[in-house]
Parts: sequence; C-alpha cells; structure tokens
Amino acid sequence: MDGAGETAGNKAMAPQDRLSAELAEDMAAVNALIRARMASEHAPRIPEVTAHLVEAGGKRLRPLLTLAAARMLGYAGQDHVKLAATVEFIHTATLLHDDVVDESQRRRGRPTANLLWDNKSSVLVGDYLFARSFQLMVETGNLRVLDILANASATIAEGEVLQLTAAQDLRTDEAIYLQVIRGKTAALFAAATEVGGEIAKASAAQITALRDYGDALGIAFQIVDDMLDYGGSAAVIGKNTGDDFRERKLTLPLIKAVARATPEERAFWTRVIEKGDQRDGDLEEAMTVLQRHDTISACRADALAWADRAKVAIGKLPPHPLRDILSSLAEFVVSRVA
Amino acid sequence: MDGAGETAGNKAMAPQDRLSAELAEDMAAVNALIRARMASEHAPRIPEVTAHLVEAGGKRLRPLLTLAAARMLGYAGQDHVKLAATVEFIHTATLLHDDVVDESQRRRGRPTANLLWDNKSSVLVGDYLFARSFQLMVETGNLRVLDILANASATIAEGEVLQLTAAQDLRTDEAIYLQVIRGKTAALFAAATEVGGEIAKASAAQITALRDYGDALGIAFQIVDDMLDYGGSAAVIGKNTGDDFRERKLTLPLIKAVARATPEERAFWTRVIEKGDQRDGDLEEAMTVLQRHDTISACRADALAWADRAKVAIGKLPPHPLRDILSSLAEFVVSRVA
Repeated sequence: MDGAGETAGNKAMAPQDRLSAELAEDMAAVNALIRARMASEHAPRIPEVTAHLVEAGGKRLRPLLTLAAARMLGYAGQDHVKLAATVEFIHTATLLHDDVVDESQRRRGRPTANLLWDNKSSVLVGDYLFARSFQLMVETGNLRVLDILANASATIAEGEVLQLTAAQDLRTDEAIYLQVIRGKTAALFAAATEVGGEIAKASAAQITALRDYGDALGIAFQIVDDMLDYGGSAAVIGKNTGDDFRERKLTLPLIKAVARATPEERAFWTRVIEKGDQRDGDLEEAMTVLQRHDTISACRADALAWADRAKVAIGKLPPHPLRDILSSLAEFVVSRVA
Repeated sequence: MDGAGETAGNKAMAPQDRLSAELAEDMAAVNALIRARMASEHAPRIPEVTAHLVEAGGKRLRPLLTLAAARMLGYAGQDHVKLAATVEFIHTATLLHDDVVDESQRRRGRPTANLLWDNKSSVLVGDYLFARSFQLMVETGNLRVLDILANASATIAEGEVLQLTAAQDLRTDEAIYLQVIRGKTAALFAAATEVGGEIAKASAAQITALRDYGDALGIAFQIVDDMLDYGGSAAVIGKNTGDDFRERKLTLPLIKAVARATPEERAFWTRVIEKGDQRDGDLEEAMTVLQRHDTISACRADALAWADRAKVAIGKLPPHPLRDILSSLAEFVVSRVA
C-alpha cells in the first residue's frame, strides 16, 4: 500500500479536487439538497445566514468523504446524498457556533455571520441547521447511521467545551489536546466515512477501517492547521498567523513547548497564555521559543504518523480509484507542512 | 367530557403536582437518567452548567406529559423514561440558548448560566445536551419517534429565528405570533405527548389527539405567559412585568393593541418598540393603552379557546385517571389569568 500511494506532486490536481471531479454528479445532488433544505418558509433570516456560509466556497471535504466511502464500496442508492448533506449541515452549524464562541471576525475570507448579523442569529440558525441535519438522517431510516451521527454530535460538542475550559490552562497536555481535536475535527471526518460504509453494507472490518481513516485524517488535518497558526515549517508570520496565540488556545506546538520550557520560558507562557498579558513582539518571541525546542518538527512528525495511519487504514479496503485518491488525500493534508 | 372536567379549584393540588405524584416512580427514573447522561467524562464544565439549570427545580412539565401519554395508553416498557429525559434535555438546551439570545440575567429565580459562566459555555453545553438528547432517542430504535422529534427540533429553531426577526417589527401579526409560539413552546409539548402515544402503539386517531392536546396546551400556556408579562388580568406591575416590552417583542397583547391603535398610539408604539426609545413611564403607558382596547380580555378569550381545544382533544382518549388530570391541566394553565 505505502509504495502504491501517490504523492500530491505527482498529479496536476489536489486530491480533493480529484474527489470533486470524480464525484461531480453526486456532489451536484448534494448541493441541490443543501439549498432545498436550508430554506425556511417562515424565517427568511435562515437561508440568508446559511447561504452566506454555505455558498462561500468551502471545500465540501466532509460530504466528499461520505460520497467516496459509499461509492468505493459499491453503493448504488441515493441515501449517500442525504448523508453527505447531513454532514455538511452539521459542519456548518458548528462553524456558526464556533464563530460566536471565538468571537471571530472572518471565515473563508469573508466577514463572519455573527459580525454581519449578530450572535443571536448565528446561535439560532446553527440550531436550525443541526435540526435539519437530524431530519435528513432520519429519512434514511438507518438506525446504525443515526447512532453514529448522534455519537459524533456528542463528541463534537464535548470537544468544544473541553477546548473552552482547556484554553489559558498550561496544564493542558497532549492527551487533552487529542480529545479536543477529535471533537472539533476528527469525529465528523470519522462519522462521514463510517456512514458511507454503513449504507453500502460494508463488512464490520471495512467499516472500522473507514472510521479509522476518517479519524486519523481528521487528526492529521487539525495538527497541520494548528502548526500553520504558528507559521508551519516556514515559521514566518503570515496573515493568519497567531490567532490561537491571541486566543490563548493550548494547541500542540504550544503544549510541546510548555512541556520543554525553561523556568524563564515558563514565566513567559504564564504571562502571555494564562494571564493573557500580551505585548508587541510576544508572538515573535513565542515562535522563537517553538523553534528553539524544535516543537514544530515534533508536531510534523506527529502529523505524518497520523497521515500514515490513515493510509494504512484506507489500504485495508478493496482496490478502487477513489481509494487511491483518499490515500493521496492523507499525504496531501500533511504536505502543507512538509 | 367538558362536564366531567375538573377545575383546578376542586382539588387541593395543582394538576402538575398530581401528575408528579401519580408518576413519581417513572419520574425518579427520568431524573436518574438525566443525571447520568448530563455527565461528561472529559469536560466537567458540562455537568456544572447543566446541573445549575436542571437541578434548579423546574416543573418537569414536558417529561411528565410524555410519561402520562404513554402510561394512560397502557405502555408497559421503559422507553418512555428515555423519551421523557430526551424532551427535558431538548428543553434545557433551548433554555441555555434562549438566555444567550435574550441576554437574560435570571432564570427560575437564579442567575443564568450565561451570567455565571459565559455565553460560550451556554452555547456549547446547549449543543452537548441536544446531542445527548439525540443519542437517547436513537436508543429507542423507533424511527417514527425520531421523525417526530427531528421535526419538533426544526420547528423550535425556526420559531426562535422568526421571533428574533419579528421583534421590533410592528408588522408582526397574529399568524406570525402563532408560528413563533408554536416553535418556542407548543412544538415540544406536542412532540412530548405524541411520542408517548407512539411508543404505546396507540391508534393514529389517538396519536393525533395527543399531538393536538400538546399543541393547544402549549399555545394556551404561552399566550398566558405573554399576558402575565403585562401583569395579566390584574394589570399590576410585578417583578417580572415588562420584560417583553423592554426586549421589544411583539407578543399577542401588543399585536392586538397595535392592530387597534389610534394614530397617536401608533406613534407611541413606533417610538418604544420599533425605535427602542423607551423612557420612564412608558411601560405604564403601554399597559394603559392595552387596557383601553381591552386587549388583555381578548387574549384571555384566545387562551381559553386553546385550553378548550386541548380538553376536547384529550377527551378523545379512553377514560383514565391521567387523562382527567391532563384535562384539568389545560384549565389550570389558563386559571392564572382567569
């Protein structure tokens, strides 16, 4: 399997674009369903807010995972479209609530809904999308699918609360971090792939492999995202650098640096993260400390290990062109920090 | 049925206390389940926030409705306990989000969670409880029940968004108001009774009657609540009077007054509700205008009509002591403004 894996550089298109191309017809059905179901007969605010986010050109990675998992296992029905839309609705609902919690101003290069409308609209429209996702999945009539998505929803919410209470707390360790990112990212990736296998009536081993793939892919994806917040391998301050630092979130680069801190560095972290007393030059100082302890390299090694696990897991499935793209996707995700 | 109905005054205990007494054993199981499921292995903030609200001595009216509906139709299993806990979790989740949206300071006589912790915790713990409710209902394995609760969740969220956009808008009419209160109150009452009948394998006609009862009871309940916000029949300013007025919500008393407004009164409503320019004495002036047009009496007539519909609906079910208490409950709900 490893030898057969393609690297992103071998192909003109990024793996997610290849997924989009392979699954274009299914994805068109998903987009049509999303548009139909985000409507509200009575409350026009709902489609306004939802359209702002849904039409903003997100990558639709999660619904693509569901479609790919179902198709590569020979699924020939139409419930994969419903489940792909379900997964995207859950994702959109969590984005709306995240932006309220993080007091974010921008998302996907545009002002956030909480800024354009208000926090109230973001909270309530998020609730509406979550309820709509629930209606969609009930329509499949598949109790195993409902169980998977109910559990994922609980893990997502639990991870978000944990992230909130772990912020500003220097005692946050890698185990808590893993729990947080499983909640905020990996749980929905894992559910997205697992339900695809479930409706395709895959074997228990195949369904486990799909779930493990989604879980490992999501973890790799989030570790890379958290590395990029400190500039990634380049360690250069870009326009999105330092958001987590300013929000005093304990992400993997910081957790590793805190674990290796000298007494002087510990005093620095206590001031900027625990006490929130941040001054000009502190982000640069933080990045220098991260470099000094080689924490970014250590994070990269973790991300690569998770990407490998994703590839091993997907390699357990029968040969299929979509399987190979999913394998490439795992490599591509970490190529941003390679 | 009407002649056989008991009035609240005939009995020493209020109907909901009689329901609690009749269903004490079931309710103990519901409370134990709620406590078990509001726990979170990883995020202690969750049970803290939830306990604050759940243990605050709410009336548990919604779970009682589910238990009563199931029991009066001879249900002998244990899924009614799961569904009663489900309904209470959904209710608690909506309260947490409502308090964020309304920027409330007090709930059930105590400071709100958003005040004690923060808005973030209220949003995310609400999401967690909603996910937990979803897990609980999936455990029943009853797709019809899942459909009912998914639809109720969507109606609730849609009603909340509609309330948000209808606030401050003098064009809000009674049809929109009905839609809003069906969302914020009646949808969960109706689902609570309907799922009780559903698991008891009641006939389609009986399930419709249970649903109609919950719907009408919820509407009557909310109209009365909105009347009490203007002092109810007494029209005396109490400690909770005027919240809706200050939040510029278009509730039934106001909607009726706006429909009957003289040009001078219309200017007053435009200033205080649309423009939000409220001064000392405006609430008293608003209450005087409501009295002048007899809008409180008109609201009372509406509430009584909905209570009657609830009684007619529940009267379609086979004789049972719990049925009689539910009938009394409909009378009791409007007795607060009789």
